[in-house]
Formats: sequence, structure tokens, C-alpha cells
Amino acid sequence: MFGKTLDANTVADVLPEWPSGPLDRYRSKATFDWRQMKLLLEGEDVIRFKNRIWKAFENDPLFARSPWEEPTRDEERKRTFLRLRKLVENKFVNEEEYLINPYLVPAFVQAIGQYDWSLCLKRELSTEYFILSAKTGGNQQHDKVVNDIKEFKALGAIVITEMAHGSDTKMLRTSATFDPKTQEFVLNTPDLEATKVWSGVLGQTATHAVVFAQLYTNGQCHGIHQFLVPVRNSKTLLPYPGLTIGDLGSKIGLNGLDNGFMQFNNYRIPRDALLNKNADLTSSGVYKTSMKDESKKFGRMLGILSCGRVFIILKCVSNLQTAISISTRYSAVRKQFGPPSAEEWPVIEYQTQQWRLFPYIAASYVLHNFYYSLYRDYVDFLIGSFVLDSPQEADMGSELHCVSSCGKAMCGWLARDAIQESREACGGHGYLKASRFAELRNDHDANNTYEGDNNVLLQQTSNHLLKLYKEKVEEAKKIESPFGSVNFLNDLDTILTSKMNTNLNDINSIIHAYQFLVCHLLRKSVGKLENQMHAANDDQFIAKSQTQVYYLRSLAITFFECDAIQRFVHFLNEATHPENLNSVLKELGLLYALWSLEKHLAILYEAGFVPAESQPGISFNPAFEIRETILSLCHRLKDNAVTLADVFAPPDFVLNSSLGCSDGKIYEHIFDALTHNKGAFDRPDWFKEFTENKPEINSVDDVTTVMKAKL
Amino acid sequence: MFGKTLDANTVADVLPEWPSGPLDRYRSKATFDWRQMKLLLEGEDVIRFKNRIWKAFENDPLFARSPWEEPTRDEERKRTFLRLRKLVENKFVNEEEYLINPYLVPAFVQAIGQYDWSLCLKRELSTEYFILSAKTGGNQQHDKVVNDIKEFKALGAIVITEMAHGSDTKMLRTSATFDPKTQEFVLNTPDLEATKVWSGVLGQTATHAVVFAQLYTNGQCHGIHQFLVPVRNSKTLLPYPGLTIGDLGSKIGLNGLDNGFMQFNNYRIPRDALLNKNADLTSSGVYKTSMKDESKKFGRMLGILSCGRVFIILKCVSNLQTAISISTRYSAVRKQFGPPSAEEWPVIEYQTQQWRLFPYIAASYVLHNFYYSLYRDYVDFLIGSFVLDSPQEADMGSELHCVSSCGKAMCGWLARDAIQESREACGGHGYLKASRFAELRNDHDANNTYEGDNNVLLQQTSNHLLKLYKEKVEEAKKIESPFGSVNFLNDLDTILTSKMNTNLNDINSIIHAYQFLVCHLLRKSVGKLENQMHAANDDQFIAKSQTQVYYLRSLAITFFECDAIQRFVHFLNEATHPENLNSVLKELGLLYALWSLEKHLAILYEAGFVPAESQPGISFNPAFEIRETILSLCHRLKDNAVTLADVFAPPDFVLNSSLGCSDGKIYEHIFDALTHNKGAFDRPDWFKEFTENKPEINSVDDVTTVMKAKL
Repeated sequence: MFGKTLDANTVADVLPEWPSGPLDRYRSKATFDWRQMKLLLEGEDVIRFKNRIWKAFENDPLFARSPWEEPTRDEERKRTFLRLRKLVENKFVNEEEYLINPYLVPAFVQAIGQYDWSLCLKRELSTEYFILSAKTGGNQQHDKVVNDIKEFKALGAIVITEMAHGSDTKMLRTSATFDPKTQEFVLNTPDLEATKVWSGVLGQTATHAVVFAQLYTNGQCHGIHQFLVPVRNSKTLLPYPGLTIGDLGSKIGLNGLDNGFMQFNNYRIPRDALLNKNADLTSSGVYKTSMKDESKKFGRMLGILSCGRVFIILKCVSNLQTAISISTRYSAVRKQFGPPSAEEWPVIEYQTQQWRLFPYIAASYVLHNFYYSLYRDYVDFLIGSFVLDSPQEADMGSELHCVSSCGKAMCGWLARDAIQESREACGGHGYLKASRFAELRNDHDANNTYEGDNNVLLQQTSNHLLKLYKEKVEEAKKIESPFGSVNFLNDLDTILTSKMNTNLNDINSIIHAYQFLVCHLLRKSVGKLENQMHAANDDQFIAKSQTQVYYLRSLAITFFECDAIQRFVHFLNEATHPENLNSVLKELGLLYALWSLEKHLAILYEAGFVPAESQPGISFNPAFEIRETILSLCHRLKDNAVTLADVFAPPDFVLNSSLGCSDGKIYEHIFDALTHNKGAFDRPDWFKEFTENKPEINSVDDVTTVMKAKL
Repeated sequence: MFGKTLDANTVADVLPEWPSGPLDRYRSKATFDWRQMKLLLEGEDVIRFKNRIWKAFENDPLFARSPWEEPTRDEERKRTFLRLRKLVENKFVNEEEYLINPYLVPAFVQAIGQYDWSLCLKRELSTEYFILSAKTGGNQQHDKVVNDIKEFKALGAIVITEMAHGSDTKMLRTSATFDPKTQEFVLNTPDLEATKVWSGVLGQTATHAVVFAQLYTNGQCHGIHQFLVPVRNSKTLLPYPGLTIGDLGSKIGLNGLDNGFMQFNNYRIPRDALLNKNADLTSSGVYKTSMKDESKKFGRMLGILSCGRVFIILKCVSNLQTAISISTRYSAVRKQFGPPSAEEWPVIEYQTQQWRLFPYIAASYVLHNFYYSLYRDYVDFLIGSFVLDSPQEADMGSELHCVSSCGKAMCGWLARDAIQESREACGGHGYLKASRFAELRNDHDANNTYEGDNNVLLQQTSNHLLKLYKEKVEEAKKIESPFGSVNFLNDLDTILTSKMNTNLNDINSIIHAYQFLVCHLLRKSVGKLENQMHAANDDQFIAKSQTQVYYLRSLAITFFECDAIQRFVHFLNEATHPENLNSVLKELGLLYALWSLEKHLAILYEAGFVPAESQPGISFNPAFEIRETILSLCHRLKDNAVTLADVFAPPDFVLNSSLGCSDGKIYEHIFDALTHNKGAFDRPDWFKEFTENKPEINSVDDVTTVMKAKL
């Protein structure tokens, strides 16, 4: 979809042959050329660009590492900082190149992130997102800080969340009160619960922050606004008086990133600290807003806010690809059991192992495409919004919001599950730190709660679909969205009276089933919502809360899966791909689609979309046939699995797993990890605690008596 | 079930009132007395015993800790060792007390484990399991080592797994060759892949090991035997010459435990190192086995081997309870959003949050009972086996093997999912290390792969059920198992022609549905297996492998759920419990049962056990009604949820979570964690890397050119 040419030779110089070894057995059976597939999926520019970054890392001692190392939090922080500085120094790409090929933006994120997510986030938060906030919210007077950031004279942080308020940003309580006498804002933290928390880069290093606070002027609150606030002296890296700033310590993962907390105590900032593109104060403190077309602004804002989620989806897909690369390669080499008096089987030969892993391989292709397709929509929106002033801007923004919300949630969960399944599929050795699964799982974990808790995000999607349904049914509007994700809702009535197409090898049958699911759940949700409105005396908040589980939540989930499959089919159809690539891509699409659909079988039965076995005269057994098709697809993909993983596996240095190296020499690499870890052969320096310091073993009765007396 | 009396006052002295705070709101609404419930579930002896241990820990500076601390691996190892020594010193219980109340055994494991699993495992592996191996496999000549272990003069390790062989122990390749000249065994590691790995306590501290190796004598291999091998000098803690021993470094979790690896290089041990209860050598090296009744021995061995799994089930249930205690309390205090112009809602008020967490609360009750009930069976088996020489011994052993295999797998996964759901349900703050979710998840993770990979264990269960099915159908035997878990299979034909009972509030309807599922999947599996035998030219290994997914695997899963529910109903029926306890226990049982059953709805539809909506004249909509009943049970449990968590939550010191304290003061405790973590307010000592050492920012074009030239 991106390559001008699919001649695998064009990238042979940067994609060398895989080293020979135990993986040859399966690589030699692949039905397609992995470089050709990679070219099709990523395009030559992206492949070369990522390769350039990774080579630079590999050649730089500052980026050296091993899968078994155990840095302390201090060491992680320091090296993340030094590597960030190096990234600024070796700026790999300029804005012009980004404009020529916007796919280099996610390529850069992925290249850094698959190496280390803390570094990726530290870069994004301290520079990119900070600059984006200042640029979209501020004016020329804020350019100085932006330039300082670009020149590494300053480091930014975004400060939103408070201890007691995350998702519900309207309820933030940090106050910025205008003092006309000094032409300053006075920032205050009203109490402990309003302490700013979780802000990345704030913990140790940020010099400036974009702070979200309630704007008060002349005794009136004007709601949440953003302020560009200096927080640390860039000459000393010490916080300014009036601020209490700290590092919030160890997290589940991402410990290279310094998340911080902050309290304001009558901290004064100048009037022009307000990011004033949409609202400003006069010198006497009169509030003026420049907002005009509210609904257009809202749609635009939704689109811009989707940016974070769009990139989280990329992070999720990257983690999915990393995890499944490791477990697939390991499973192709690890042998255990086998038929009596025959050679032991590589565990990838077992049906259970195939079924555990291959749907995630399929998902990594389908969701890779989902991401690229959504990103393309996002770029179209940005161009439409900023360059062309497109009339579709608001609709584009809303649709992006809808799709990126469920996409972030579902890709987050899918990657989570793929990492866990991969970890377990690697058995005991998967429990080694050197497997990289702990780091992957712990770093990925944040994706499921930040930028919106996944369950809350699913509500954004279902709310959008409910709105469209009402427009269609109550206002008889035609549904036509800029990116087409919801257009099938126009045929809701026809779809709802249709039945399952029994040709399961045609992915269009599955799309049809998904369209039915979405329409069915939408109609059922509207019905339940009406009942609940009745029960709750028309309190929509309560009614919606009571309609989430099995209704609106399932609606958003099936909508996402439907959209992901549709986008994949669109990709398959948009050009004539070489047949050897096309046939395996089709199998992957079908496997993902059936494996996802299988989880919704009960709804299909309940709704009468598929026949139950007990119905006379009908020979189509949907559960049986869907499941058998899944198993048969898994079986067919077996000999291609390693090569499918090769397509998206980063180089060994980046993959950094003793279980997943491209040479397949799992035992040699595990042995390396065992014998090279710190102190592997050392006697503990406290050994005399055993050899000399022997315990006096109390008789139990004594202890019991003593303890009982104590209590 | 264990308490002689249910007067809550009898334990009021060791179970103080909860501190007043934000949780009062829900605690005051509970419909039952938490102490009375705790007495019913654990019994007074266990409550007092665990309390005694926990108080001793809390009063001992060596056991002090905080949720935000970040020990290095070295520190974790050292403190685990010192705490182990203290456990030996303060022996809390003697064998006589264990015999009087066998429930003290799991109580001890749980009390230590909920505090720290590394400590619990280090104790089990270095003493208990080692002694069990030596006692069950060896003879008097091995008592010296056993006594040394008991007196802390020696520390044991069990050495089984090799780098290339875990589950398939028959294929281990470490050799023990008898040398009649010196009356010694010579131990050798044939190659890198046969390196012994993963052995707990071996890494740094074990002085002795029970080593599994192939016994060779007079040029013949007699298969795997166990040898009691000295590995480190107990005066110096240095390994003996001929051994290469190392510590395998950092793991995903359990880093207080020193797992190790070992290679043998012509390492000689005396002839009496062989654990010779069942087989021995003459001085000339003639092999003699004392095995008589093979099938009885096998059944007995299966029973004994179940021990490890039975205790892993306890560990899983404990982790489930710990996780859900934290997330339930947090959800009852954390507020976010709410109806317009009304107070914000505690997140536990949201349907989604209830549905995410309450089934796990229900599971923690049902599986607590499952564990206790299975443990009782295990004790009966041990008494029957060792004391009474029961004729049922082999059958008991096989049944324990069957139930503990699927039980370990399913409780492992359920706890895994409960921890993850809890972590996500606590949103951003759940990502703090101080939440304890990382430790819980990382430590628990091992349970899903050690002592048998979960998917492999499910095969043990399904194999047993297949065997019974054949006995019933082909040999017309009556199925009557000692513990009754499979007795309903006798009614297979009747069950298979029955339909779902529509009274979903009667848990017997759900048990009936589960019995149907097991019978149905058993029959279907036998059918598929026959087809596959045909396709695989009667190769049973291949045929079974091809019948796992959707068949034998699902069979084992539904069998487990059926058994867990049956055991819970048995507990509810075995005595007259006070009505206020009984009614909530019934709700919990029903919620767990329906929530589990809901996942199998498609099979029920497919099999015609429930009617599809499209069938005329039938008003029962199973999917709808099962789901609505689940939601309504969640809703009804809401006001009891905190108190249900209180029943099994360990004291705050043991829970060790800034989010889950019993006083509900989540923000105060989180703030403590933020401000007390190491270096919270320190400027990093490398700050000059930012303030002085500024990067020279290359122009991009230069870099690009340079990089391109390099590549």
C-alpha cells in the first residue's frame, strides 16, 4: 500500500538475510518473500528510515544494553535523559521530510519505542506534545519557550491530572486567579486532593509546564484553561519558590520516565502565561472568548485530541508485534513431547499452541493496517483542518474521535492479551527477565488507563453511534461519514432482517455478520436505554450507566472489530498485490475476523442471525463451522508463522530478548543470560548469615505461649 | 464449615473494628457481620493462627516494609534469607498441632505468602518439599540430611528441569552412572541443553539437592531416579568441585528467591545417595525394583504429586483475594463523574465497575471453598494412603490428580485476570508501584507455568474423563469416584436429552447446565477423537493433539467450573448457616456460576440445550436472562462488596498497598507514597548533564548524509 515497487531487492541492502539456524526449518517452507511483504506493509522509506535510526542506536555505546541487565531506577532515569539528549543532537528527520512522507512520524515513534518506551515518551512529552499544546493554544508570545525546547534549553511537561480527578477534567480544582494589580495569575492548590500528579518529565527535569487550571477573574470562574508555567530554573534545575515538586517514585513500568507531582502555593505567573488563542483577559481582567462556531470548534477539538490515542494505537500494535515475534520464534525451536518413538515436536506443531498464538499474528497484520489507515485519516483531517479549512472538519473530527476511542481501548487490550499469551506460551523460560516479557507487559500496562480508561473510551464510541442512530431514525438523515466507517448504518433495516452467509471463507460474510452485530446491538441498546430512562425518571446519566454492560460496551467493541476488518479488506482490494502475498494476507484477515466473531456467537444465536442446531431442515452449524475454520486456518498458517513474524520483528538488538533472536539459537542465548547476569557465580556477601550466624530454634510450645501472652 | 461457633465475639479480640473513614458509607450498609462470615469460612483456629503470625511479623523490624520501597535484587535475596532464618527460629507450629488441625498447614502458607511469596517459596522448597522428597523416596540413611535441614544446618533444593526439558521429565538427560569399583554414582551433564535450570534455592544458598537423573548401571538405562546430592559446603557456602552452579538472575517476579542452574562434570556421589524406597542397586550394580501393584502405585503417585498443585491453588486464591480487596476498597472511595448537579459517584456505583469486579469477589468465595474442599480430600487421601492403607487409594489419587490439574490451571488464570482487572479498575493510581499490583502480577505469573503449563494440565483432566467415559460406555462400568466429582457422568444419557431449567435463581439449574456441558463436550470430544484417529492412521498422539481446542480443552474447563460450583452448593447445604450469611453466599455462588456459564452460551445454543430466539412459541431468552441476572446480582451485591472484601483482606501491613488500606483514606496514603519514595525531592545528581552539557544540534541534512554514507 505504500511501496512504489515490490521488488524485494530494493531493500536487501538494509534487510540482510536471517542468520542460518534452527529457524531455517520453517523459513524454508514460507510461501512468500518476507522482504516483499515488509515493503508492501511499510514502504521503502519507512524501512530505510527505521533502519537508519536502529543502526545509529546500535553503533552508539550510550544505547548499548543486554536482555538481562537490571538497572536501578536512578540509572534508568539518567540513561533515558542522556539518550534523549542524543536524540536531539542527532535529529534524524526534519519537518520538511515529515511533510513529504508523513509516515515517517509514526516510524520514528515506533523505532524509538520498540527500543524503549520510556525514551519515546520522554521525548514526546518533553518536546512534541508540549510544543503542540503551546502552538495550538498559544500565540507568538509563547514562541520563545517553544524555541528553547527545540534547542534543548528547556524541557516541557503537560500538567493536567490531579490526585482526585483524572478522566473528569472539568472537575479539576487547581486555580489560576487573575490579579489586575500586578497583571499576574496566582496559582494555588486548594488541598491535598488537588495535587497535580502523574505528569511525565515533571518529576526531575521539566523546566516548563502547560498547566490546566480553573481561570478565575473578578470573582468568577471561567473554567479550565491552559497556562505556560516556568517550574524549574534551567540554570540549576531547582524548582522555583512557591512550588512543591517531587518525583512520584517507582511505577509498574516506564521507570525511565520521571513522572511527578506538584502543588502551587500562591505561585505567580505573568498574564501572558495564559495560552490565549481561544480566550483572553483584558488588563482589567475582563474575560473575552473568541470562540465562534461552537459545534465546529468542538468537532475540531475532538479530532486534535484524537492524536494521543492514534499514537497509543501505534504503541499497542508495536508491542503486539514485539511480543508475538518472540513467542513465535521460540515456539518454532522449543521442542517437547512427540509421538511415541518419533522425534520430539517443536511446540508450534501443537494445535493448542497455534490457536494460542496465530490469531495474534493475524491481529498484528490487521491492526497494523488499522493503525496506518487511521493515521492516514488523521493526516487528512489535519490537512483539511489547517490547510484547506475543509467544511467536513467537524465531521472528520467526530469520526476520528469515535474510531480512535474504541481503537485505543481494543488495541490496548489485544496487545495486553498477546503479551500475556506469549509469556505463557514460552513456559518457564518466559519467566526470565531476559525474555523481555516483563518489560513489555509493565510498560504496555499504562496504555490501558492513560489518555482515558478503556471502558470510559468505549462510551465515547457508543455515544457517537447513538447520536447517528437518532439522526437516522428520528431525523431521517442519511448517514455519510467522511471516512466511511459508519455508512453501513444506512442499511440498518435491511441488515437487521438478513441472515448469516454460510460461506465462511469469504471475509465479506464476516463483515456482514459484524454489520449485523453493530446494528443489532445499536437497536437493542436504544431499547434498553429507553427502558432505563423510564426507570430513572429521565436521568440520562443513570440510564446510560445502566445500559453499558452487554449493550453499549459490546456495541463499541463490535464496531471496532467491524471497522478493523473493513479497513483490511479495503487494503486488500485497493491494489493488485502479488498473489503469494495476497493469499496469506487473506488468510490472516479471515483468521482475525473469525476468531473475533467467535466471541460473539451467543448474540448471533440469540438474535436468530444464525440457526441453532435444533432447528429442523438446516444443515449450517455456525459454531462448529466457525471454529473448524479457525483451526484449519491456524493449521495452514503454521509453516508461514515464523516468516510472518520476521516481517515485523525489529532487529535483535532492538528486540532484546534471549528467547526471540533471529538465529533461533534459544538455548545458547538463554545460557548467555544465565551466566552473564550480575553476580551469577558470586557467593552472596552475607553468606556468614548462614555459615556462622545460626538460629536458636525455639521449641514451638515456648513460642506459642510467648505469642499468646503477647496478644 | 470449620467454626464450632459462629459467635463473632469469639474472635473480636484479634479482629478489631475497622478504622472509621470513607469506607463507613458502605460498611454501614452491609447485611451481615464480617467476623461471623470470616469465622464460617476459616474457623477460629485459623484466624487466630494467621493473626499470631502476622502480629509477629509486624512487631519484628526485620519484617518492616512499605508499599513504595524499591529493594535491589541483592537486598531482596538477603532479606528473604534472613526472614527465612527467623521463621525457622520462631517455629510457629509443630507437627502435632498440624495433625490436630490440618487447616493450619495452608493457613501458614497463606499467612507467609500474602506477606511475600518469595519467602513462602524459599521456605517450602528449602525445607518442606525437600524433606517430603527425601522422606517419600528415601530411607533411614537419608535422615541425617533431613535433620540438618530441620536444624538449619543445611538448605535443600529440588533439581528437576533442564534447559531443554520441563514438562516432559522422561526426556531429562542428566546421567547418574554407577561405578561399582568405587561404589559411587558419577553425575554428568551431557551438553548445554541438559543444564539443570530454574531450581529454587539452588542459585545462592542450597547445600543439598534432590537431583532427577537417568540411572545407568552395567551399560543399561533404568530411567529417571532421584539422588540426594551435596552441592555446597555448608561451612563456606561454596559449590563443590565438579559442579558449575550459578544464580539465574532476575526473573519477572519472585526475586527474593534464588533460582539457579547447575552442570555436573564427573561429579561423584556415594551409592546411598540414591533415594531407594522403590528401587535400588546391589553393590555390583544390579538393579532391583520393589514396585508391586503398578496401577495402585501409579494412582498413589498421582495423588502425592497433586500436593504441589493443591498448594498452588491456595496461592492463586490468596492472590485473587488480595487483588480484589485493594480494588474493591479503592472503588468505594474513588469518585469520578456523576449526574448533572449532583454529588460525584464513587466508581463502585457504576454498572461497568460492578461487572468488572464483583464476579471476582464471588469467585474468591467460591474458589476459597473449592480450595478448602479439595484440601480436605487431599488430607483424606493422605490418611487413607499412609495410615489406613485404604483400598480406594489409587482411585482417590487419580481423582485428586484430575481435579487439582484443572483446578490449578483455572485458578491460576482466574487470579491472573482478577489482578489485571483490579489493576485497570484502579485507573492511573493503579500504575503506582505502591498499589502492589505489579508485585502481585509478577509473582503470580509463575503459577501459570510452573508445576505444569496450564494447557498441558487441562489435558490431564480431559484424559481422566475420557478414560471414565470409555469405562462407562465400553465396559458398562458404574462411575463412582471417592470424592464424587464425576458421579453425574452415570446419568450422561439422561442429561444429554434434557433442556435448560429456566429458573436462573436456582443454582441447581446452573449445575444442571454445567453437567450438560461436560457430558456434551465429552461425547463430542470422543466423536472428534475417533475422526482424528482415522485421519492420523490411529496415531493417538496426533489425534489427541488435534482434538484439544474447542473440545478436550473446553471439557476440562467446564468440568472444573462444574465441580467448583457443586462443592460450593455442598458447603451451603452441609449445615444450617445463619440466614444473613446464607443469603449473601447464595448470591455469590449464583453470580460466579452464571458469569462462568455465560462464556459457554454458544455451546448451549449450538447443542440445542437452550432455545434460540427465533424459535416460535418459546418465551425463554437464555442469553438475555442470564445476562440480566448477572447484572442484577452485581447490583444487589454493591452495598455488601466492601464488607465481603473485608472478610478476606489481610491486615494493612500484610496487604501493603497504598490504595487498599482498611481506613479507606486513599489520597492520604497515595500522598505518603509519592512524598516518601526514595529521592522524591532530590535534584538528580547528574543535573549538570542538562544545565551545562548542552548538545550540539546537528542540522538534519548533515546527519542524514552522514548516516546514509555509513550505511
